[in-house]
Amino acid sequence: MAKDLPRSPLAPASPPRLTPVAGVRVAGVAAGIKKTGARDLFLAELAPGTTIAGALTRSLCPSAPVDWCRRHLPRGKARAIVVNSGNANAFNGIAGEKAVKATAAAAAAAIGCKPSEVFLASTGVIGQPLDSGRVVGALAAAQAALGAGNWDAAAEAIRTTDTFAKAAGATVEIDGATVSIVGIAKGSGMIAPDMATMLSFVFTDAKIDAKALQAIVRRATDRTFNAITVDSDTSTSDTVLVAATGAAAMKRIKDARGAKAGAFAEALEGVMRDLALQVVRDGEGAQKLIEIAVTGAATDKAARRIGLSIANSPLVKTAIAGEDANWGRIVMAVGKAGEKADRDKLRVAIGGVEIARKGQPVDGYDEAPVARHLKGREIMVAVDIGIGKGRATVWTCDLTHGYISINADYRS
Amino acid sequence: MAKDLPRSPLAPASPPRLTPVAGVRVAGVAAGIKKTGARDLFLAELAPGTTIAGALTRSLCPSAPVDWCRRHLPRGKARAIVVNSGNANAFNGIAGEKAVKATAAAAAAAIGCKPSEVFLASTGVIGQPLDSGRVVGALAAAQAALGAGNWDAAAEAIRTTDTFAKAAGATVEIDGATVSIVGIAKGSGMIAPDMATMLSFVFTDAKIDAKALQAIVRRATDRTFNAITVDSDTSTSDTVLVAATGAAAMKRIKDARGAKAGAFAEALEGVMRDLALQVVRDGEGAQKLIEIAVTGAATDKAARRIGLSIANSPLVKTAIAGEDANWGRIVMAVGKAGEKADRDKLRVAIGGVEIARKGQPVDGYDEAPVARHLKGREIMVAVDIGIGKGRATVWTCDLTHGYISINADYRS
Repeated sequence: MAKDLPRSPLAPASPPRLTPVAGVRVAGVAAGIKKTGARDLFLAELAPGTTIAGALTRSLCPSAPVDWCRRHLPRGKARAIVVNSGNANAFNGIAGEKAVKATAAAAAAAIGCKPSEVFLASTGVIGQPLDSGRVVGALAAAQAALGAGNWDAAAEAIRTTDTFAKAAGATVEIDGATVSIVGIAKGSGMIAPDMATMLSFVFTDAKIDAKALQAIVRRATDRTFNAITVDSDTSTSDTVLVAATGAAAMKRIKDARGAKAGAFAEALEGVMRDLALQVVRDGEGAQKLIEIAVTGAATDKAARRIGLSIANSPLVKTAIAGEDANWGRIVMAVGKAGEKADRDKLRVAIGGVEIARKGQPVDGYDEAPVARHLKGREIMVAVDIGIGKGRATVWTCDLTHGYISINADYRS
Repeated sequence: MAKDLPRSPLAPASPPRLTPVAGVRVAGVAAGIKKTGARDLFLAELAPGTTIAGALTRSLCPSAPVDWCRRHLPRGKARAIVVNSGNANAFNGIAGEKAVKATAAAAAAAIGCKPSEVFLASTGVIGQPLDSGRVVGALAAAQAALGAGNWDAAAEAIRTTDTFAKAAGATVEIDGATVSIVGIAKGSGMIAPDMATMLSFVFTDAKIDAKALQAIVRRATDRTFNAITVDSDTSTSDTVLVAATGAAAMKRIKDARGAKAGAFAEALEGVMRDLALQVVRDGEGAQKLIEIAVTGAATDKAARRIGLSIANSPLVKTAIAGEDANWGRIVMAVGKAGEKADRDKLRVAIGGVEIARKGQPVDGYDEAPVARHLKGREIMVAVDIGIGKGRATVWTCDLTHGYISINADYRS
């Protein structure tokens, strides 16, 4: 197993500022699922009246907990979130469903709610039965450990091979009340026979209807977690859940389109972007964070597809790993995206320096400033398609020997 | 530059058996485009009456020669093919078009045909103007060198960073006549700032209408060149051309659906499959050839998409590089393909050994024979989706440190 990987060189330098979120208590404890004895069970207790929204993997072979969340999310009510690491409870057939039901029933009994108000996620090895007895057995200890400030333990408990624990927070003024938002995330280390799993849980004391929350979360997810890629592989378990306790002294948001909703959505998106970028910063073998800004596409959706085509291109990612200003590979990736583009209108810039314009290298292009930019940790690629107003920004990391070592050299 | 890479360990052990093709003369000469002085100009002279069909990159940023071929292929008539290596003539704007026109005009004058009967391809550096003067200047030497048996020089002249020259041949009896098919191909080495380019030119003396030939080539391309992937990156220049001189003593094939067409199509597909597999065998850093057979999908097209999703997954490719029987990653890749699948009906086998069935690991699964299979050079993965009759086979190679070294460590 690829254990004890060094902390990513792209990890944030300082810890995030995390405040308690009224109506939320969290705990991270050891349930004995990870063989190392490390924390592997995350429990969040949510105040009555909490609304929930989320986004789940589009994989057609989802894990049992994803099936569970998909069934219960439309009701928009939550009282608890239970997450284990060390076992993904994926591809376990009927045994997987049984483990999910047993866990939800036990947590509901402990918290005093319906099983359908308990949301679940699992991450780790797949195709090995999850011993739900260990989860159920540790719930009492988790409940005893619940507290408003346990974010570090919570983030720790959902890690698998992440080289650092991921959390982010923000506050926003609404109706004169200070609304808190705190989230944790994990991804995207993996050890054979594991797979990448991106999990994120965000908590706020905002007062908001589930339907409005869902609309805001969907849009924010598209612009954050759905705009990052490490290696183009989609997990069976990807889960983003956002729980709003309503404990803040504000009027209830009922419509996702109002100005008040806009202020909340902006703050929420900021926390989600921070978490999403932390996932990329911990991309396997990552030495550089790459931001790809696409403008001038036919639509925003087209811009995002073009951006992801560039971000997923092994040739672009290896070129940047090699600090090579290989804009030809960027053009190639635009061409293969399947979206409308006109070679003779394309503009490509790296680190703010225009390299190609109107389908040709810029006259008198000086590679020196681009080469300097590529030696840094954060790389900016800008592509203008030149045919419309669609725009999107996506993020990825470079593809290095580290990725191969983590995924090929270490055996399960 | 990543020069003098060692010959791929997956290269064919013995050279292909290539026969002359009546009505075709070829040459490979040095035009001075490659700085090394190596052969870089391929000329094929085709007998009057030759029909042609082909498949071109779906990239929306194609090279100038691809634009040219797309314009003239519908007429289905060819008298010459001119290919240079060392410069892709891509992303060169108007200068690229001018180079194409000058080359076609000069070749047409030399051969005695219309420019629209001259087909072109270029491979190598992109974004640098192609000096068509060098191509035009070397045409006389190429014409003087034309011969029926020059396949080795021809295959050599279209190489860029391929570690071996690629050719394949077959014969088939039709109407009592022996029909010959010979093809050459190049791909998929690349050196910054180059990109992968897959080129293939196939010649036959079969007598066949252009429309029927196009239908056969389209189907064969889907099952061969479009069923291989090294790194999911689509070139601006991918080109497959099949020329049929009609010199064989057979009756003309006018319909792609008859039995006679079937015999020819089968032989042609065999040659194209051989060439396509040689491209994969020369995949950058490849240590293993991977065949992925998908059955039981909703449609053949769905099966191919699922197969390519597996074949393009960096996690699957690194697991196989690490000789790790990580079937969980295969399930993940099925799930992300976006095609209809049911986790609980999925069957996965590696090296003929069933690992998972009905969404769960097989009882008493013994990894030992699978581990032995994974130590070999040719890996067989079989996935049964269990919901329909769609099937497809695709091929790829593993993802190794060699890929990173070739594309990241060497600078342009």
